[in-house]
Amino acid sequence: MSATRLESLLSNHELQPLLPVVYIAWADGKLKQSQATRIRELAGVLPAFGQAAQETLAAWLRPDQPPSATELARLRRCIHDHAQQRQHSLAGMAAAMQPDISTAVSDAVTAYEQEQELNPAGLSAALFSGGEPVRQDFDEPQPSFAPSELQAVLEGAYASEWQWVRETLADDVFTYADDETSEAQRARVLDWLRHLIAAGMGFYPMPEAVGGQANMPGFIHLFMALAMFDLSLVVKFGVQFGLFGGSIMMLGSEAQQQEYLADIAAGRHLGGFAMTESGHGSNVQALETTATYDSETEEFIIHTPTLSARKEWIGNAARDGRTVTVFAQLSTGGDDYGVHAFVVPIRNTDGTPAAGVRIEDCGHKMGLNGVDNGRLYFDQVRVPRENLLARYAQVAAGGSYDSPIASDDKRFFTMLGTLVSGRISVAGASVTAAKKALAIAIRYGALRRQFGGDGGEQKILDYISHQTRLFPALAHSYALHFAVADLIERFKHRTDDSTREVETLAAGLKAMASWHAIDAIQQARECCGGLGFLSANQIANLRRDIDVFATFEGDNIVLLNLLAKNRLAGYAKNFEQSLVVTVMQELSTYARTELIETNPVMARKTDEAHLRAAEFHLGLLELRAHNLLVTAARRMRKRIDQGMEPFAAFSQIQDHMLAYAQAEMDRHVAACFDDAIAGMDAGLARAALERLRQLAAIDSIYQSSAWYLYNGYYHPTKHRALRKLRLKLMAEIRPDALAYTAAFAIPDRCLTAPIAYEDYIGRNSP
Amino acid sequence: MSATRLESLLSNHELQPLLPVVYIAWADGKLKQSQATRIRELAGVLPAFGQAAQETLAAWLRPDQPPSATELARLRRCIHDHAQQRQHSLAGMAAAMQPDISTAVSDAVTAYEQEQELNPAGLSAALFSGGEPVRQDFDEPQPSFAPSELQAVLEGAYASEWQWVRETLADDVFTYADDETSEAQRARVLDWLRHLIAAGMGFYPMPEAVGGQANMPGFIHLFMALAMFDLSLVVKFGVQFGLFGGSIMMLGSEAQQQEYLADIAAGRHLGGFAMTESGHGSNVQALETTATYDSETEEFIIHTPTLSARKEWIGNAARDGRTVTVFAQLSTGGDDYGVHAFVVPIRNTDGTPAAGVRIEDCGHKMGLNGVDNGRLYFDQVRVPRENLLARYAQVAAGGSYDSPIASDDKRFFTMLGTLVSGRISVAGASVTAAKKALAIAIRYGALRRQFGGDGGEQKILDYISHQTRLFPALAHSYALHFAVADLIERFKHRTDDSTREVETLAAGLKAMASWHAIDAIQQARECCGGLGFLSANQIANLRRDIDVFATFEGDNIVLLNLLAKNRLAGYAKNFEQSLVVTVMQELSTYARTELIETNPVMARKTDEAHLRAAEFHLGLLELRAHNLLVTAARRMRKRIDQGMEPFAAFSQIQDHMLAYAQAEMDRHVAACFDDAIAGMDAGLARAALERLRQLAAIDSIYQSSAWYLYNGYYHPTKHRALRKLRLKLMAEIRPDALAYTAAFAIPDRCLTAPIAYEDYIGRNSP
Repeated sequence: MSATRLESLLSNHELQPLLPVVYIAWADGKLKQSQATRIRELAGVLPAFGQAAQETLAAWLRPDQPPSATELARLRRCIHDHAQQRQHSLAGMAAAMQPDISTAVSDAVTAYEQEQELNPAGLSAALFSGGEPVRQDFDEPQPSFAPSELQAVLEGAYASEWQWVRETLADDVFTYADDETSEAQRARVLDWLRHLIAAGMGFYPMPEAVGGQANMPGFIHLFMALAMFDLSLVVKFGVQFGLFGGSIMMLGSEAQQQEYLADIAAGRHLGGFAMTESGHGSNVQALETTATYDSETEEFIIHTPTLSARKEWIGNAARDGRTVTVFAQLSTGGDDYGVHAFVVPIRNTDGTPAAGVRIEDCGHKMGLNGVDNGRLYFDQVRVPRENLLARYAQVAAGGSYDSPIASDDKRFFTMLGTLVSGRISVAGASVTAAKKALAIAIRYGALRRQFGGDGGEQKILDYISHQTRLFPALAHSYALHFAVADLIERFKHRTDDSTREVETLAAGLKAMASWHAIDAIQQARECCGGLGFLSANQIANLRRDIDVFATFEGDNIVLLNLLAKNRLAGYAKNFEQSLVVTVMQELSTYARTELIETNPVMARKTDEAHLRAAEFHLGLLELRAHNLLVTAARRMRKRIDQGMEPFAAFSQIQDHMLAYAQAEMDRHVAACFDDAIAGMDAGLARAALERLRQLAAIDSIYQSSAWYLYNGYYHPTKHRALRKLRLKLMAEIRPDALAYTAAFAIPDRCLTAPIAYEDYIGRNSP
Repeated sequence: MSATRLESLLSNHELQPLLPVVYIAWADGKLKQSQATRIRELAGVLPAFGQAAQETLAAWLRPDQPPSATELARLRRCIHDHAQQRQHSLAGMAAAMQPDISTAVSDAVTAYEQEQELNPAGLSAALFSGGEPVRQDFDEPQPSFAPSELQAVLEGAYASEWQWVRETLADDVFTYADDETSEAQRARVLDWLRHLIAAGMGFYPMPEAVGGQANMPGFIHLFMALAMFDLSLVVKFGVQFGLFGGSIMMLGSEAQQQEYLADIAAGRHLGGFAMTESGHGSNVQALETTATYDSETEEFIIHTPTLSARKEWIGNAARDGRTVTVFAQLSTGGDDYGVHAFVVPIRNTDGTPAAGVRIEDCGHKMGLNGVDNGRLYFDQVRVPRENLLARYAQVAAGGSYDSPIASDDKRFFTMLGTLVSGRISVAGASVTAAKKALAIAIRYGALRRQFGGDGGEQKILDYISHQTRLFPALAHSYALHFAVADLIERFKHRTDDSTREVETLAAGLKAMASWHAIDAIQQARECCGGLGFLSANQIANLRRDIDVFATFEGDNIVLLNLLAKNRLAGYAKNFEQSLVVTVMQELSTYARTELIETNPVMARKTDEAHLRAAEFHLGLLELRAHNLLVTAARRMRKRIDQGMEPFAAFSQIQDHMLAYAQAEMDRHVAACFDDAIAGMDAGLARAALERLRQLAAIDSIYQSSAWYLYNGYYHPTKHRALRKLRLKLMAEIRPDALAYTAAFAIPDRCLTAPIAYEDYIGRNSP
């Protein structure tokens, strides 16, 4: 094909409206007969279409004479120049050129564009966009509410604790470093811990008698707030004060508290909590370490009888700790009394291991390498009789054992129960970690553009795929925050009667919050693409560190089983029957009736007010939890009737128990979110929070939709309506996305990820 | 209570059968009236029950006189001693003591045990287990098949490639190290790469003309097999040969191949692949780097016009690479021809950056720190005209452009398409990484015991919660392996007509395999508890490294969108209509008819043979994929009818498109698994593989059960039957669990995790 043909085309004014059509038809290198026909039809409606124009066009409509790459490039440049001058889209441009044929041409162009769009090997929409880089700034609408209002709701009565952490973290020492060995990280984290100690945070949970503030609920909030910065620091802080200090505070006598706590709070005495063994992490009652009383010397002999009895994963043990609380099987006078806690020095003042103590470093981990986890072996290590933590048990000089709680089991679980604040703290820190990752990812999503139609590339946060990954996670983070805050208040006001419920909820909430954090941070990581994989952008480190939150302070599966068993036992108690078989019999009768009578769901109701109502959500979530509990009880009973051992019966329905536990926590968390909103004044902030509540609740329901459909609790039409509403809520939340994360009030020092800031490319400029 | 009361109880032979009952009743510290009554009833059936026995018992049945901890401990020890002597469970022991009252007493004991079991604060089953540590060994049944048989099926015609990798990795240099800085890791990985080069692997994919074996399919299998060892090495290997070497091999002229490839294959010339930019990772067509031809000097000027145009994430750039293939917008004579590839030196022979090239280190990452990713900025860097990779485009000395493909778009996608082997390789390596993590976790699960009923603690792999996390992942790993192997063969035998399909499947399979690997490795990590978090146990490192597999070689969301769009376009082509609107109209008519006529599912059929049949699984998976495709087309059409731009219309139904893409891949992968089995001889190995196939397929269906229920494609009874069969398959797979992972034949050197071996506690013994 001659250049003449190209020049004829470009110079012919009459043909100008058809240039885009001709170009697009040839853009894939082939001209279909149907395309040629269509172009001829279009030419037919052009006014004043002369002979020269017809001949030129004909030369361009021969499928056997394709243009060269150069001709196509020139043709495109000509069209492009026109489009830029007029600031029009391709279709709009064609229309604008000659208004009287606008409809026919623009229809044709649109149709071709559509076809090309369907075919990614075809015309890219980007081809006609300008060459200037898109400026990176937030360019977001004004939010519908003031973030500080939601911040106040989130922090509630603990705003001063959160603020204290923010102000403490303002010191320059709190600066991240990457690409270090574990030793360097541990040194840095210890330095950070010393700064928190200097700020006085170690005294916050301690009894007033040792100079503390006796504010354990406030301490848990400090712990949560510190997760805005670094999770190794959070864990180190928790080991020193919550576990080491906490075990002495909760299990020690007043004299023991006086002896140790001030030094621990002031950081003069660093220590750890040696419960877990290689052989037993979950089944703590089966620990093998022994503490045998020797009445001749009035000492306990702490001993590791087997390899599997070595203490494993002990924080502060590998490097910094001088002393640990050892959990061991107490034996005196030939009798065993179960697991008790002992204060055992592991290092001499010069840092060398104490006599008979062997210390190993657990080694490098997936994350949390700022924490010095170690293994401990005790070879007949002798400690004074007074080192038995004495609140729940004493051994007299002669060897006689005394305890206010006669039952070994009850004593064991009472002792364990006093440590419940650790589980609540881990749940809280998980939520904070999720919030931080989402804050970074949502900010990045509002900056980053990729692909798009006319008018430049689209913000990635405007893609549904992006919203469905980040917004439900955001909503669940709020929901779980309120559930943790609620649990801290229950913990604060716990009584003998409510302790069990606090422990049960702590087990469930720790599991739900840590898994949520793992999932939310993972979504955030992927939503930031490769940049999310860089340590400098924080999310990667959060993701590495958070992983073990599903394991420590109780494996999540074990915790959910515990919750389910506690609830099942609690349910059984209502019938005042002492024998399980009878209870189960009663249960299954009761269950059938109740299910039929209490079903609160109108399976086909789909009006939007109904679908958005908390009453509807809570009813549906409660229905599921209750149904799963009752059916679990029934299945247990059936197996026991068949002569199965209870352990085996539980094992067989374990998936059911776990499903129940999750359903129960979904219900509980949704209720906490609803309660939090109920306490707010009407206004824009409340309305904004209500939208998140709706998304969290509907997402929980939606995730279980197979169950609801299976049981006929909602009709397919309702399922569809919920699916649509879920997407609609994404769109409603979108304009406020940044404001929701601003309400977390995470300091810049903590949110230092370059991708979270407007000028992130500028920051790395040459 | 006096010691006399205890002694009376223990010494009274008549009361011996009741000791467990008395103990259990008091074990929680309280005696309920109902318990006392029940014990009296039991006593009533004892023969020869004298006055002394009655009085002693009465003294123990006063709720207001609880025993002390010491009394309870003594009582328990007495019972325990009896039980140990007789090797009986508690209930069995009571029965054995006096056979004639066995039923009544053992019933009562069982009932109490059940109650205690329901109440975790109650009697622990472990309480009566012995004190000896459980020996850690596999203690597994003989598998039903020889693992080597399945290994042969997995490796197929590429057994020699897999074996080559195993033998190469046997060198002592291939030893892991943890807790290093990035610099140390990079040095080590480079050393490893040199050993692979020394083995000759670099020449495997190269053309015979440069001394290679021209075996790209075999090369992909090498890449997959290397993932048994270390993913940093895999990526470094892929960058050097697959991306740097591959770009020259696929996009370069024969002369260019001659010039570069032998040096690249021999490791004398290390390099990278500079496509991704800060501003554009997914939308590659919009890259900003320019390559402007200067006819006066016959050079291309490579330039980074903006910050967002810097090359980002370039492997081998930060440390080791001397040259990269730069993708840039070619411009000559004032015309733009789109993205082309240029060979651009970035370092001088002394390692300093080449003139005009600025190199930055991307910095520390979540994982893969053995790979030296860097950023590149080009400041008017001049390269000879000959450095344009010339297979698909040449620029003559005078500046005229020539290409065998006139269309810029078509040329661009053709060039990109030649690189499809990278995507297939990443999918394959992902599957290997998943296999390795599962092999470790399953071995650990068969060693580790925790909790349990009588007879010691139970293997954690025997818990349903553990099986449901690991076995579906195992089954999907097999399924995806076969899908990758299938795709390698399609790639090997690709024609012009099938190239598009290979690219489409590669996009989908890369997304599915990388997400599967992330999920499977995550499950494996959590299933190994804290030990899974230690770097020494491998899973943690796999988890860190695998994360970015969801992002590089195409973001998974973008890839699934690509798959969906390609399929939609392909579907539209069947109607030979050139205009989208018409096609859509046709489509929706066709769709409705077809759906009604072709629905292959009998919604209520639940017999097991039917539920296990591949025909049923494939029918159901196909139904879903097809339905989602047709409904997506219909929704597109509706929006286009309303005048919406195609980009916007696609955006609105993006969740639908993604659901379709995943459904389509589920269907495809299931079909590949079925095909693989169809080629096997009947026998035990085939039967074992068939069980995995069933689990993989049923799990895929089960995960989408909300959709099937919603659409009425199966009745709730069928859902329940599938749920039960899914669990039944877990139990069928359990005895062969180790054998399924043994079939991966991962060398000990690669599977070096201490927790994966019988003597893992012994290995760390003092």
